[in-house]
Amino acid sequence: MPRFDLSLPELREYRPQVTEPADFDDFWRRTLAEARRSPTEPRLTRQESPLTQVEVFDLVFPGFGGQPVHAWYLLPAGTTGRLPAMVEYNGYGGGRGLPHERLAWVTAGYAYLFMDTRGQGSVWGSGGDTPDPNGTGPSVPGFMTRGIESPHDHYYRRVYTDAVRAIDAIRTLDRVDPARVAVCGGSQGGGIALAAAGLTDGLAGVLPEVPFLCHFERAVGMTDEDPYQEIVRYLSVHRNRTEQTFRTLSYLDGVNFAARATAPALFSVGLLDPVCPPSTVFAAFNRYGGDAEIEVYPFNQHEGGGGHHWVRQAAWLEHVLS
Amino acid sequence: MPRFDLSLPELREYRPQVTEPADFDDFWRRTLAEARRSPTEPRLTRQESPLTQVEVFDLVFPGFGGQPVHAWYLLPAGTTGRLPAMVEYNGYGGGRGLPHERLAWVTAGYAYLFMDTRGQGSVWGSGGDTPDPNGTGPSVPGFMTRGIESPHDHYYRRVYTDAVRAIDAIRTLDRVDPARVAVCGGSQGGGIALAAAGLTDGLAGVLPEVPFLCHFERAVGMTDEDPYQEIVRYLSVHRNRTEQTFRTLSYLDGVNFAARATAPALFSVGLLDPVCPPSTVFAAFNRYGGDAEIEVYPFNQHEGGGGHHWVRQAAWLEHVLS
Amino acid sequence: MPRFDLSLPELREYRPQVTEPADFDDFWRRTLAEARRSPTEPRLTRQESPLTQVEVFDLVFPGFGGQPVHAWYLLPAGTTGRLPAMVEYNGYGGGRGLPHERLAWVTAGYAYLFMDTRGQGSVWGSGGDTPDPNGTGPSVPGFMTRGIESPHDHYYRRVYTDAVRAIDAIRTLDRVDPARVAVCGGSQGGGIALAAAGLTDGLAGVLPEVPFLCHFERAVGMTDEDPYQEIVRYLSVHRNRTEQTFRTLSYLDGVNFAARATAPALFSVGLLDPVCPPSTVFAAFNRYGGDAEIEVYPFNQHEGGGGHHWVRQAAWLEHVLS
Amino acid sequence: MPRFDLSLPELREYRPQVTEPADFDDFWRRTLAEARRSPTEPRLTRQESPLTQVEVFDLVFPGFGGQPVHAWYLLPAGTTGRLPAMVEYNGYGGGRGLPHERLAWVTAGYAYLFMDTRGQGSVWGSGGDTPDPNGTGPSVPGFMTRGIESPHDHYYRRVYTDAVRAIDAIRTLDRVDPARVAVCGGSQGGGIALAAAGLTDGLAGVLPEVPFLCHFERAVGMTDEDPYQEIVRYLSVHRNRTEQTFRTLSYLDGVNFAARATAPALFSVGLLDPVCPPSTVFAAFNRYGGDAEIEVYPFNQHEGGGGHHWVRQAAWLEHVLS
Amino acid sequence: MPRFDLSLPELREYRPQVTEPADFDDFWRRTLAEARRSPTEPRLTRQESPLTQVEVFDLVFPGFGGQPVHAWYLLPAGTTGRLPAMVEYNGYGGGRGLPHERLAWVTAGYAYLFMDTRGQGSVWGSGGDTPDPNGTGPSVPGFMTRGIESPHDHYYRRVYTDAVRAIDAIRTLDRVDPARVAVCGGSQGGGIALAAAGLTDGLAGVLPEVPFLCHFERAVGMTDEDPYQEIVRYLSVHRNRTEQTFRTLSYLDGVNFAARATAPALFSVGLLDPVCPPSTVFAAFNRYGGDAEIEVYPFNQHEGGGGHHWVRQAAWLEHVLS
Amino acid sequence: MPRFDLSLPELREYRPQVTEPADFDDFWRRTLAEARRSPTEPRLTRQESPLTQVEVFDLVFPGFGGQPVHAWYLLPAGTTGRLPAMVEYNGYGGGRGLPHERLAWVTAGYAYLFMDTRGQGSVWGSGGDTPDPNGTGPSVPGFMTRGIESPHDHYYRRVYTDAVRAIDAIRTLDRVDPARVAVCGGSQGGGIALAAAGLTDGLAGVLPEVPFLCHFERAVGMTDEDPYQEIVRYLSVHRNRTEQTFRTLSYLDGVNFAARATAPALFSVGLLDPVCPPSTVFAAFNRYGGDAEIEVYPFNQHEGGGGHHWVRQAAWLEHVLS
Repeated sequence: MPRFDLSLPELREYRPQVTEPADFDDFWRRTLAEARRSPTEPRLTRQESPLTQVEVFDLVFPGFGGQPVHAWYLLPAGTTGRLPAMVEYNGYGGGRGLPHERLAWVTAGYAYLFMDTRGQGSVWGSGGDTPDPNGTGPSVPGFMTRGIESPHDHYYRRVYTDAVRAIDAIRTLDRVDPARVAVCGGSQGGGIALAAAGLTDGLAGVLPEVPFLCHFERAVGMTDEDPYQEIVRYLSVHRNRTEQTFRTLSYLDGVNFAARATAPALFSVGLLDPVCPPSTVFAAFNRYGGDAEIEVYPFNQHEGGGGHHWVRQAAWLEHVLS
Repeated sequence: MPRFDLSLPELREYRPQVTEPADFDDFWRRTLAEARRSPTEPRLTRQESPLTQVEVFDLVFPGFGGQPVHAWYLLPAGTTGRLPAMVEYNGYGGGRGLPHERLAWVTAGYAYLFMDTRGQGSVWGSGGDTPDPNGTGPSVPGFMTRGIESPHDHYYRRVYTDAVRAIDAIRTLDRVDPARVAVCGGSQGGGIALAAAGLTDGLAGVLPEVPFLCHFERAVGMTDEDPYQEIVRYLSVHRNRTEQTFRTLSYLDGVNFAARATAPALFSVGLLDPVCPPSTVFAAFNRYGGDAEIEVYPFNQHEGGGGHHWVRQAAWLEHVLS
Repeated sequence: MPRFDLSLPELREYRPQVTEPADFDDFWRRTLAEARRSPTEPRLTRQESPLTQVEVFDLVFPGFGGQPVHAWYLLPAGTTGRLPAMVEYNGYGGGRGLPHERLAWVTAGYAYLFMDTRGQGSVWGSGGDTPDPNGTGPSVPGFMTRGIESPHDHYYRRVYTDAVRAIDAIRTLDRVDPARVAVCGGSQGGGIALAAAGLTDGLAGVLPEVPFLCHFERAVGMTDEDPYQEIVRYLSVHRNRTEQTFRTLSYLDGVNFAARATAPALFSVGLLDPVCPPSTVFAAFNRYGGDAEIEVYPFNQHEGGGGHHWVRQAAWLEHVLS
Repeated sequence: MPRFDLSLPELREYRPQVTEPADFDDFWRRTLAEARRSPTEPRLTRQESPLTQVEVFDLVFPGFGGQPVHAWYLLPAGTTGRLPAMVEYNGYGGGRGLPHERLAWVTAGYAYLFMDTRGQGSVWGSGGDTPDPNGTGPSVPGFMTRGIESPHDHYYRRVYTDAVRAIDAIRTLDRVDPARVAVCGGSQGGGIALAAAGLTDGLAGVLPEVPFLCHFERAVGMTDEDPYQEIVRYLSVHRNRTEQTFRTLSYLDGVNFAARATAPALFSVGLLDPVCPPSTVFAAFNRYGGDAEIEVYPFNQHEGGGGHHWVRQAAWLEHVLS
Repeated sequence: MPRFDLSLPELREYRPQVTEPADFDDFWRRTLAEARRSPTEPRLTRQESPLTQVEVFDLVFPGFGGQPVHAWYLLPAGTTGRLPAMVEYNGYGGGRGLPHERLAWVTAGYAYLFMDTRGQGSVWGSGGDTPDPNGTGPSVPGFMTRGIESPHDHYYRRVYTDAVRAIDAIRTLDRVDPARVAVCGGSQGGGIALAAAGLTDGLAGVLPEVPFLCHFERAVGMTDEDPYQEIVRYLSVHRNRTEQTFRTLSYLDGVNFAARATAPALFSVGLLDPVCPPSTVFAAFNRYGGDAEIEVYPFNQHEGGGGHHWVRQAAWLEHVLS
Repeated sequence: MPRFDLSLPELREYRPQVTEPADFDDFWRRTLAEARRSPTEPRLTRQESPLTQVEVFDLVFPGFGGQPVHAWYLLPAGTTGRLPAMVEYNGYGGGRGLPHERLAWVTAGYAYLFMDTRGQGSVWGSGGDTPDPNGTGPSVPGFMTRGIESPHDHYYRRVYTDAVRAIDAIRTLDRVDPARVAVCGGSQGGGIALAAAGLTDGLAGVLPEVPFLCHFERAVGMTDEDPYQEIVRYLSVHRNRTEQTFRTLSYLDGVNFAARATAPALFSVGLLDPVCPPSTVFAAFNRYGGDAEIEVYPFNQHEGGGGHHWVRQAAWLEHVLS
């Protein structure tokens, strides 16, 4: 993909107007209140594993509607006491996979929770284990338009709620220091992390990589890559639902969550990224409510900073937590 | 797509062994019995339309689980009495769209019902109006793997039930001669028509065009085109669910429905069709339980016989009904 | 295709300078005069058809050079007297196909003529029946550069003349009200409709959808999609014929015909259309000589408004004719 | 393109049955007789050129129907007397271009004629100068289906006649030894060379490279590459013209011409060639009526032997002529 | 990619004849003897890292020609004494990247060495650090044809030697049990592992996943995917070097190394793998000299078993080592 | 490729700032001085050839580091005395091929030298004969990033030196007039010609067609076509080497060489060229130090003016030399 978006100096100043519904906060307050009626404490089951240096648990917590959501919960073997914790959300289409596939944070000494994304986990990787028991109106294959007729029914209302409840859950565990919980994720995981950051108090850090789910009004139609393109396809058929659709999406826009977040944050962006165009990432970054830095990868597409960025994240988080 | 499947003489003799579960009939008997607990009679609402030669109705009937399913119901204006009827099922991803988009059968003098496919109708065309209120486990974007863990939960259990109930519904109408109801459809619609033919008594004719949903054990992995490829993607992630997956699909295989059908049938097939490979179509045709003919289009892909085939169908059906 | 052209506010103001040859009107006056030396009255042959609600005729009229051009002519069965009429021109590569394939206008009560495009009808659909007996100099496969050396020899001189003569022909029929003839078409058909509108008096309505053949000087090289790209390919070989080529095209440019049209018009445009870029459509719309409206489909490509737009057209035309 | 056709041992034995119409010879005898009613002698016009070592002429000869066909005619400067001559036919879509573009044969001491292919010359290269004044019925963009309804009207009837008449013409020139005229060409040019070889007496050599236009019954549908695919597209629309189409093509099949040829021949073939599959080349080679060799390029696609093969050709021809 | 190779039953019996040069063993004996003239002991440099549970070292060992080759060497923190060790080779185009990117084996309690592939490490991932100081004759971009004129100069002669020397090096370390060293790798890494297995005594296990570099005579031309296709491209230009090229490759063929291996092995294969076709993998597996198992992934392409296969590997290796 | 770069009026004024290292001249002075320590006189070997009108020689001259570089050297047969000479450099991936493949300049009366590009000659055409004996650090397949860590080690330092030494060599020959030597080439060959023009005194003419290797800071990331994209790929992996990489490239940038050139020049450019975007060509043209013209091909991509441009070049050069 050649350069196609604003220049870096323009991106640094890019502060577009993004629709925010008047009842945004109310909508989410009620959504979370309803979810929190279910008990918070997760169910932990120790897993057999060849990983001698790590303790592995299947963790099940009550997400949206109290529905069970799976996660892997990993602890560095041979440690004791409360640890700082990292909660990670996954990219689009992937599931939590297998416990040995994401070892960097636990090997760096963190309690680590990797959340399944409901209904996903069948497109790449090693699979997911969490159903999405809610149906949908006519929708484009994928998750972007499930329940698109209303914010109340939209798929990401459920996922964002799961994300908040994952933090609630990990904070109840006796090996986790609830004041030192950070969230991270790439692409969809980055968008979910932003939502969690806007909906949760007291996070120690927020680390969205090349975040998806930001500034829909620009993103939809600006790129022809999935998943944003799923919405274009929907609107190309449902030609009279443009207004309704963007109204629903305004309740889910990472820009609006970023404006409400207060924890320190480290973003990343690829300037050639056709999946999550840089201007949509900067739209969220430039509105972020807390202290925030962004690492710019000028010749990367959606892979962003890759392993290089994790090294940057680990150093940044160590600094933030110290 | 160049020629890639068996030669025509081989296709004419192709009678593969296709898995049929022992409780196939029982499974479907119970499924339909449960659905038929809802009242059969549809709700008809006359639609405003610029079509002066056709009467247009929104028809809503109780499908799987009694859930409401939309259809268009068209009658030739200026006619009276009971008419022969055609029930049509749609191709993958499309919805019932708008009433003026499918006028051939009604203009030829048939009462015509065009069924929405639940949850579909957002990929091409003019949209659909019927939700699928049932959720799913981890699945590949699309409909092939929704509920794939079990035949009981699979999406097409619901759709096939809708299809049978659409026939039930149209037979209750006073403008329809219940003894002269035929079913048709292309691709997914052809597969659904086969299922309806295997599950319904007394149909006057069955007209599957380039039918999909036939002989999964060969189709999955033989072509890399969607929708069969959705199942390949699922199995490429859920590497240990091959047996379970094909067990579920065996309850949904058009070959097994074809073997139970008794009404006269007219199939079509495109010998260069990469979406529904000709051998999978012949697998169903060669097992068809009633009298059956097949029109072979040697240089067509999935578009099959197009308008030429409709002319053939209209003549064939007129002959069958006479 | 992501957004690539001007923004909607810019499109609404887009009024580019388009080359118009000094003898444009003279060229076409002489062309039509020559064609009209042949007798106008068409030859009608009733067709056998399964369509009981429609009367079907093969209509042959003398087009350019008096050469025979085929059309389908449909009447709503059971009607009498003079009807309003719709003349439709086809998209690129298609033929008139089979009579049952385009039933909406006749079912809405119009006398309907669907014109074959000479030499076309072999790329998609069910075929065409009209040859183009004129040869060509070296040309790119396709129709855009047949006779490109001179407006006198260009293929579309013949097609546009056919289009005007189709209107002449239908106006002679006793079931048609010559004062209530409208023209429509999508893509190439929309471009031909514009030409017909600029060359014919007294049309009741003009309905170009996503029209092709407009503002060549911008379109050629702005998109790499066929058919405009055929001209790019030609010029990439005949490197010294740029001026001559655009001179020829200026006699065929829909913008110049739009400026001469006076009948009320309803356009459509897809803002993501890579085949007929929106600015080329607005270039014609903004120059249109009569009352004109345009329906904008913001998330559609070349499929434009599809069935939704036909509903819009039917209501608009009913209003215009009333 | 991976290997997709028969193995080399199978190719060497591949002798399929190819349809040959009973009046094949009569058809061509009459065609040529009619063409030869025009005077044979070409019109030569010396061209200004920077090429000091070569004399350049525009040569115009009467082809099919006596219609003028252009060619470049080159002589090695500083030579005198009668020279052996090479007549070359071009690949699909190209024109004769410019005189300096094909210098190898003249630089090797041959009188060289490079024939324009009527109507072609606008897809690649530097252009063509010869129109095809004959029109066509509905056809697929390209040249394969122009006049496909009948061998009498087919485009290649005209081209093959041009090819024979080019040989007639060059044999009249005083710098050419009429007993030492060879023909060559790649792809379409190779197919034309085969036709010329089957229709002309006394050629000194025939050098078809990766010839096209051979064994249509296998080629059409076996590859999805143009130009054979043009015929598939045609038949996918004109679903009821399969028999008629292949009847027309049987009059034009290089296999039937090969069987009639008597001059010594050197073929070439690329075993990975998806445009002219190797089995279609061997079908002609194995039926060739004279002495014939074939150079096999196992890892080449349609580019065949390239410059390496010209070296082989030059040595072979020198040997044949000596 | 649809199924394109032999069926699974055929694959299990597939034992093709593969060229083996008479001096194969001599060639490699001399190559390794020459390399072993350099001192074996690696240079270890402890790396700063956020990974508290792992000790990280940059390890540099003398590879082919004594040239320095980089690797990461990881030890589970908090362990003492000699550990079993895993040596991993990388896939095509990747470098050793960063230490935190491959943590599974060390977290499972193994000393772990991940070798850089000389000159690679710039196409995907986080980079490599090892140059290839040797030049090349004319070659196709990539590594397959560097030095293809002779086995002596070929790139993989150097890489395979590096691979053997990596094992030599790790066996000298005081935290490694030299009798319990295994090798693994996917794709190119699997091919290198096979070479190492054929050239090294006393390995505890060999774990090639979807191995590349096997049965060149079938693979080259059977798939059009890189890297095998690099060789096709080379031969399509150097049309007269087929014999020489395959002679060089015969010294590098994984089938010939497999026949010489004696350590227990666990292979994997994807039956839809277009990069390393299953028959080429089975060609090596069926010739393997030691005990060998193969895990078949029927619906996977080149990703093979992914994380699922690592779980299988870890269990298998634990069993083998116990 | 649609239009994507600046408009022609903008291009004519485009004079960007391009990084030029302070020691640019010193770097090249030392590089050439070192190369010129080897004897200049080439080794000539007459080749057997079917080309009777041309004398063919294999010419080997000492290039970078005195390493042997091959070229074809052609003379018009039957001439005597000193001739003007043309030195041509090749496009990316090609080799010198075979002597009969480039005959235009020699046929126009020039002594002609066609230089092999070291290490290239295996991607298209008929092959190359010159190795590149220098190794490389981790690099992307291709030549752009070989030795990218430093200008001293970069591949094009060697190639540009070869290019200068080719001119040195041909000037020693007794059939060449050393005051009438011109250089030409397309794409990579055009970039090399610019380098030669900036590094050589007394050239009679410089003819770069659609030159590559110009204005890297804009080109890298502006197009996603190879070869510029090779550098994007490299930087997408080596995320921390952007500065170092562009520093190396600044020693190789055609813009910097153009500024130093003094011989008259004729450029060409294709306005739709996605490989060498027009603005990068104009960046060099607008900085050219001598008299310069540019031929603009508005509808061409990277093929530029093709044979038409050669005619233009021949006339221009004749004029310049007269």
